[in-house]
Amino acid sequence: MSKTAEILAIGTELLLGNIANTDAQYISQQLSELGINVYCHSVVGDNPERVTQAAELARSRADIVITTGGLGPTTDDLTKENIARAFGRKLYFDERSADRIKEWFYSKRPNGKMTENNLRQAMLPEGCIVLDNNAGTAPGCIIEDGEKIAIMLPGPPAECRAMWESGVRPYLEKLSDCVIVSRNVRVYGIGESSVETRLGNIIPESKNPTVAPYAKEGEVMLRVTARSDSAEEGYAACDKMVDKIKSILGDNVYAVDKDSLEQTVLEIMKEKGLTLSAAESCTGGLLSKRITDIPGSSAVFKGSVVSYCNEAKAEILGVDPSVIEKFGVISSETALEMAQGALERFGSDIAVAVTGVAGPDRQEDKEVGTIYGAIAWQGGSIVKKIETYYRNRTGIRNMAASALLDMVRRHLTNLPV
Amino acid sequence: MSKTAEILAIGTELLLGNIANTDAQYISQQLSELGINVYCHSVVGDNPERVTQAAELARSRADIVITTGGLGPTTDDLTKENIARAFGRKLYFDERSADRIKEWFYSKRPNGKMTENNLRQAMLPEGCIVLDNNAGTAPGCIIEDGEKIAIMLPGPPAECRAMWESGVRPYLEKLSDCVIVSRNVRVYGIGESSVETRLGNIIPESKNPTVAPYAKEGEVMLRVTARSDSAEEGYAACDKMVDKIKSILGDNVYAVDKDSLEQTVLEIMKEKGLTLSAAESCTGGLLSKRITDIPGSSAVFKGSVVSYCNEAKAEILGVDPSVIEKFGVISSETALEMAQGALERFGSDIAVAVTGVAGPDRQEDKEVGTIYGAIAWQGGSIVKKIETYYRNRTGIRNMAASALLDMVRRHLTNLPV
Repeated sequence: MSKTAEILAIGTELLLGNIANTDAQYISQQLSELGINVYCHSVVGDNPERVTQAAELARSRADIVITTGGLGPTTDDLTKENIARAFGRKLYFDERSADRIKEWFYSKRPNGKMTENNLRQAMLPEGCIVLDNNAGTAPGCIIEDGEKIAIMLPGPPAECRAMWESGVRPYLEKLSDCVIVSRNVRVYGIGESSVETRLGNIIPESKNPTVAPYAKEGEVMLRVTARSDSAEEGYAACDKMVDKIKSILGDNVYAVDKDSLEQTVLEIMKEKGLTLSAAESCTGGLLSKRITDIPGSSAVFKGSVVSYCNEAKAEILGVDPSVIEKFGVISSETALEMAQGALERFGSDIAVAVTGVAGPDRQEDKEVGTIYGAIAWQGGSIVKKIETYYRNRTGIRNMAASALLDMVRRHLTNLPV
Repeated sequence: MSKTAEILAIGTELLLGNIANTDAQYISQQLSELGINVYCHSVVGDNPERVTQAAELARSRADIVITTGGLGPTTDDLTKENIARAFGRKLYFDERSADRIKEWFYSKRPNGKMTENNLRQAMLPEGCIVLDNNAGTAPGCIIEDGEKIAIMLPGPPAECRAMWESGVRPYLEKLSDCVIVSRNVRVYGIGESSVETRLGNIIPESKNPTVAPYAKEGEVMLRVTARSDSAEEGYAACDKMVDKIKSILGDNVYAVDKDSLEQTVLEIMKEKGLTLSAAESCTGGLLSKRITDIPGSSAVFKGSVVSYCNEAKAEILGVDPSVIEKFGVISSETALEMAQGALERFGSDIAVAVTGVAGPDRQEDKEVGTIYGAIAWQGGSIVKKIETYYRNRTGIRNMAASALLDMVRRHLTNLPV
């Protein structure tokens, strides 16, 4: 019988709408991977009565109550007092946590003067398991009370996540008596519903490993998660499922356990010792931005020309003005000339180019979303009309940049572009 | 006595962590502006019992219960049935909503075949106020039950927001017997804590208009919100407060009621009939991307060169290789040459350039975060070392791009750069 959990966030800033409850999202994803069912999220402010009420309600319904927030140094921060009360515990002063708080404080502010307030954070429920904070001052903790468990985590997302990784996840894994590992399968070129259709019963019937789809900006990620006695066994089960998915989705699977198309393309090119350049019109720098988001991209990427006006296309990239006149800026012919221009200007091994209508207005009487992409190399080139199904500027620009990256990936790995 | 509200989200996708509860954040911000206190958010799955329980609990505590999600066409979508039950109402078939659903469906899929499921969305609680959906199919509704109010909204953020704006906000404003208007004051160049310190008691003591700070990537936005009998009166009160803020923060206030630095700069340049170009090194296309995110930017922006390698700086931008050799790529001298190169290549009225170390590794023995920015025009130029207080690549790149935009703004409006 799998365990149930509720997530209780404590913080007025959430009720004022200053921030979204991304901690609850993160923890829910994690619990889902651990096979723990989440039936409820709730958020209350820094009010002792409402915190206690919410904690008692959650405790009455779920095996595990996870709180976020309210562990800080100010008098507003009431989580530990109130959760401890709901679990019938008193607080004690934890010397080791106090030392860690001092150490963290003075490492950040060598000339600072720590106030007594900060040490309030070292007050912890009697008999708890202390969760060290490696990304801030406030420690978290776990209370085990018969069949019920309370886990208290700090609110700032970076601290919450670091503590989850270092303390909570290992604790819950041990509790569940198994190891959980996962692989992320990255898919480009087919939509989420089409991925689900092609995979048939695999997603709904997947138990161990489970297969969960996540759609994001023209891409789909499939997370394959296995529970087993050892990591080796788990990865073996994941890899078997990954192979099955690959055999169905074919070359639409562009990578496993990588972050993005741009990372994938850069790694392939780095390995082959090749360089890249770009000429961008409608994407206006977005393609270059995505490539240079990756640390170390300078080993591959030589640069780009954002030719947002026709003169720049002609003068900097050397596009023949008569080509623009004859076929228009939004054409495969202009895309090709732009790619060849970038190849020459930057002296790179491969160049990509994109031109099209990102909207909101039509251009050259062509519909919003009309995009042409080209890649060129010494001795060859490919140009292609790119299908975009977004109808807004941001979506179209992102999809155009992704399509260009996928063209390069396919060219580099000898797949049909 | 101000009213209280609770927000109840219904949707398994939230409990699985597929999405964050951004609807609750948006609605909380809006309620806060309307002077309605929010004491609790909760999220439950598509389970009739838990939805009813949560609705009854919320109803027992708050004047207004706002639900999001669960209005769709599938059998999972149970919100209306269960909320109606908690408020003692039956459902009826709303012909007008059914017609609107059909119209929306066939406008998107002229050759589609609508299933009966879709018309389930036209089932609404008896005696409710119908909220039209202008961004999708499912209508929302309001139930008034003595002192208690239930408001049901669709889950998809675009639909939720559109319905809030068109139906809920006007309804709540009428309820509160006053008009609420606001102004957004945009601040660049000073951090949030420094803004708060300089404004002294203004933020904590603001009642009508209220002043609320929002920090975002190196910028601060101050939202000034006034409640009064008429919009004119409200805007007059806001504008008085805006003037007071401006008199304290001076030229760090870059705009009121605009979206971004890039929008502000583009509008000033468009008005003056000036054109812009750029040369980017460490920002790698991000600056151009941010400028071209704005529809209509092509009237001002001629393009840019992303010179990610030294050859491109020399050959395309015409940077003197001996300058790079003598002063390094990360230097004010190189930044200046890059700006002058872009000015010449693109024939624009103003050109900007940025070079620096975005990290994660040091470069030319210069620290991560060392950035130089330059602007050039016919007959003049300015170069500046840019202070970045972020220590990660994304933060540094964003801050560098913002700093360049702010330099252009200052230059264009005769402020010290």
